[in-house]
Amino acid sequence: MIHVSLQRLVLKNEVNYIISQITGLINTPVFIQDAEGMALFGEIDQYQPFRYPVEIDNKTIGWVGGGEQAAVLASLLSCLAKQELEKKSIGREALEKYKEITLLYDLAEKLTASLDTAEVAQLVIDEAKTLIAADNNSVMLVNEETGMLEVIASSGKELHPGEGLKNGTGIAGSVVLTGRAEIVNDIPSDKRYVPGAVRVSSLMCAPLKIKDRVIGVIYISSEDPVQYTAEDLKLLSAIAFQAAADIENARLYDSLKETFLTTVYTLAETIEKRDPYTGGHTKRVMNYSIAIGKVLGLSDTEIGRLELAAMLHDIGKIGIKDRILLKKGKLTPFEFAEIKMHPIYAEEILNHIKHLRDIVPAVKHHHERYDGCGYPEKLRGDGIDIKARIIAVADAFDAMTTDRPYRKAMSLQIALEELWANSGTQFDPEVVRAFFEAFEKDELLVKKGW
Amino acid sequence: MIHVSLQRLVLKNEVNYIISQITGLINTPVFIQDAEGMALFGEIDQYQPFRYPVEIDNKTIGWVGGGEQAAVLASLLSCLAKQELEKKSIGREALEKYKEITLLYDLAEKLTASLDTAEVAQLVIDEAKTLIAADNNSVMLVNEETGMLEVIASSGKELHPGEGLKNGTGIAGSVVLTGRAEIVNDIPSDKRYVPGAVRVSSLMCAPLKIKDRVIGVIYISSEDPVQYTAEDLKLLSAIAFQAAADIENARLYDSLKETFLTTVYTLAETIEKRDPYTGGHTKRVMNYSIAIGKVLGLSDTEIGRLELAAMLHDIGKIGIKDRILLKKGKLTPFEFAEIKMHPIYAEEILNHIKHLRDIVPAVKHHHERYDGCGYPEKLRGDGIDIKARIIAVADAFDAMTTDRPYRKAMSLQIALEELWANSGTQFDPEVVRAFFEAFEKDELLVKKGW
Repeated sequence: MIHVSLQRLVLKNEVNYIISQITGLINTPVFIQDAEGMALFGEIDQYQPFRYPVEIDNKTIGWVGGGEQAAVLASLLSCLAKQELEKKSIGREALEKYKEITLLYDLAEKLTASLDTAEVAQLVIDEAKTLIAADNNSVMLVNEETGMLEVIASSGKELHPGEGLKNGTGIAGSVVLTGRAEIVNDIPSDKRYVPGAVRVSSLMCAPLKIKDRVIGVIYISSEDPVQYTAEDLKLLSAIAFQAAADIENARLYDSLKETFLTTVYTLAETIEKRDPYTGGHTKRVMNYSIAIGKVLGLSDTEIGRLELAAMLHDIGKIGIKDRILLKKGKLTPFEFAEIKMHPIYAEEILNHIKHLRDIVPAVKHHHERYDGCGYPEKLRGDGIDIKARIIAVADAFDAMTTDRPYRKAMSLQIALEELWANSGTQFDPEVVRAFFEAFEKDELLVKKGW
Repeated sequence: MIHVSLQRLVLKNEVNYIISQITGLINTPVFIQDAEGMALFGEIDQYQPFRYPVEIDNKTIGWVGGGEQAAVLASLLSCLAKQELEKKSIGREALEKYKEITLLYDLAEKLTASLDTAEVAQLVIDEAKTLIAADNNSVMLVNEETGMLEVIASSGKELHPGEGLKNGTGIAGSVVLTGRAEIVNDIPSDKRYVPGAVRVSSLMCAPLKIKDRVIGVIYISSEDPVQYTAEDLKLLSAIAFQAAADIENARLYDSLKETFLTTVYTLAETIEKRDPYTGGHTKRVMNYSIAIGKVLGLSDTEIGRLELAAMLHDIGKIGIKDRILLKKGKLTPFEFAEIKMHPIYAEEILNHIKHLRDIVPAVKHHHERYDGCGYPEKLRGDGIDIKARIIAVADAFDAMTTDRPYRKAMSLQIALEELWANSGTQFDPEVVRAFFEAFEKDELLVKKGW
């Protein structure tokens, strides 16, 4: 509630000056006192015949005492107090709007900076945490396929990513259905509440809406009872409003990315499947490569390229005839020369795809050797793209540990010894070391067999 | 500039009442006049000895005349006028903030609703047009590869999508370099200006920024001279702030989509290229299919699926051995039975890709016949997915008009006659009709030969 202090009004220089001038015109002594009776101007004289109230909105905030003429001062102070009140209330409105603008700009800047759904959801939670006191925060999204309301990001102990509520259950489920934000300050008395592992007393939940479609909710809760206010809910709703479209865009991007990767993987695997003995080879080479890349500290961008390059490393085999690619006996020198063309074919294919050109070196050179005796360009050492050196180790290890038309798989032990024996000649010793580190840490998923 | 009218102040009921009360206390007649000398209270009497100014911020807005005691009234009116000014200025600030919030919510809702770069850019222009008067509006983005500042969307005559400015040239180029929004109200005197086909006199240009990186500008201009104000520029900058991230996200999405489509196309084409006589077949079938689909009024979503399905229609051929697929002589019944497996293989492959499952019917059934004598399931009529019926016509037309290992291409005339002859038996007559309509309208690009 906005409050005007008569004391502070009377003490203002310009007001005080006017009061003095007017009292100079009045023929009897005058005094001003606040609602509690404290003197603010002049000396209180109980024997003065008149006492006029100073009022704002019919509320008395003080008195002017004196003769009949003291009435003018009461009118004046009421008028000035009213002006002051109006000024303050407009000022408060401006301040609130200012805060809301700052919040909106801040959210716009932060939330649109990412197209990763979990990351955007986490940013929404971080923002909510700084603005509203709560023990638990979460962003839950409706999974269109299953209808479940799934936790995408969270803080606190109540909910965790991966958990979910069945369609329409709980207070969050109810907010999804109605599309209306809610405050529940006394949760135990709400019949919709589905008790979880952690006891909570108060909550707020705002829908994430794209036009009239509810895609999920922002949910915050407090273990101790709290009185969340309409102002708190307005803030949470402003966050939800800004976040909804950003989350939806991130989801669309994630979904397209998944489609892209799955499609390319499936096609690559299909191309590779012409050799029935190497089923799953592509997936395992990707897997080993990424594990090695992480040990070597490659950046996220480089890991992304490594993933695609490993996925597509044998794409050039599409250009090799079945007769040679699937031959069970020993290859003639001519046939082997044809096989050696596959990195060149891969380069030709990938050069058609603008955005994949930066993975060409990784794909083209995965059969180079560290000592310069590989193909197609006899590159050596650091002259070979690091991703190609990684794929070389991953590819060789998988080739050794799976059955081929012309031989059975080696034992794991012998394959590891082979890698080690060829470190520094065929393979980059740094990469082999990283491979062993990943192997030790159980990051190669060797036995899971994809 | 905010203005306080002394006349309106004096006419306010509560103020007028106070003035009357105070003049009742004063022993000489009093009058109030405005800065122009007009009487606002009492009668102007030039013989009164004193004239006291009513002032706000050292500016005289009127006078109080009378005896010496009239001074109190001048102080009072100055004090009330000052309060009024403060109230108005805070009120104006609140109103501006309110407008800004409305704008921000509005922009957030509109701009994030799309992930298509040109569409988002057009929405930005539409929004700018409703808020700021201008003849020409455009959104220009920096092309990272060429360094050109390219027009993505526009209204008015000055600039058109596809046009561009060289890096750093013009006022827009300068805004990209400095990252600072600019008003140029007298363009001809600005040395940076590069005159175009349309003469413009005034402009505003605001950078689209992602953190400190300028990705482009919003540019508006007026043919007649206009005085754009700092307030206008603030509005344009608010739009630019909100738009930047949305445009960037749309660009990232577009780019991923292009990579996806190009990659899938390239892999599909590669798989198909095992038959050297059908180079470009995939692209042409896509092309014909989309043209037919548009004539038939398919929705954008369905056209998108048709594009992918046409792209991948022969993907199953990866499972057919070279010996059969590339055979130059006549196929044995056994070999032909193997060829007929390719739609089934395609289904197996596509079922691995969740988001492509909805194109399976279009791919799997592109060798069904309208009369039910096709393969693999002998579906008939409307029981065959419309996209499969379209691809069937597109595929057959391309097969007839290109050379094959075992025969030369037919003439265009004969191929068209064949389609017509088989309409209603092999092909859906509606689709054949649509094919001819697209052909007549020159939408098949038959001679461009991709």
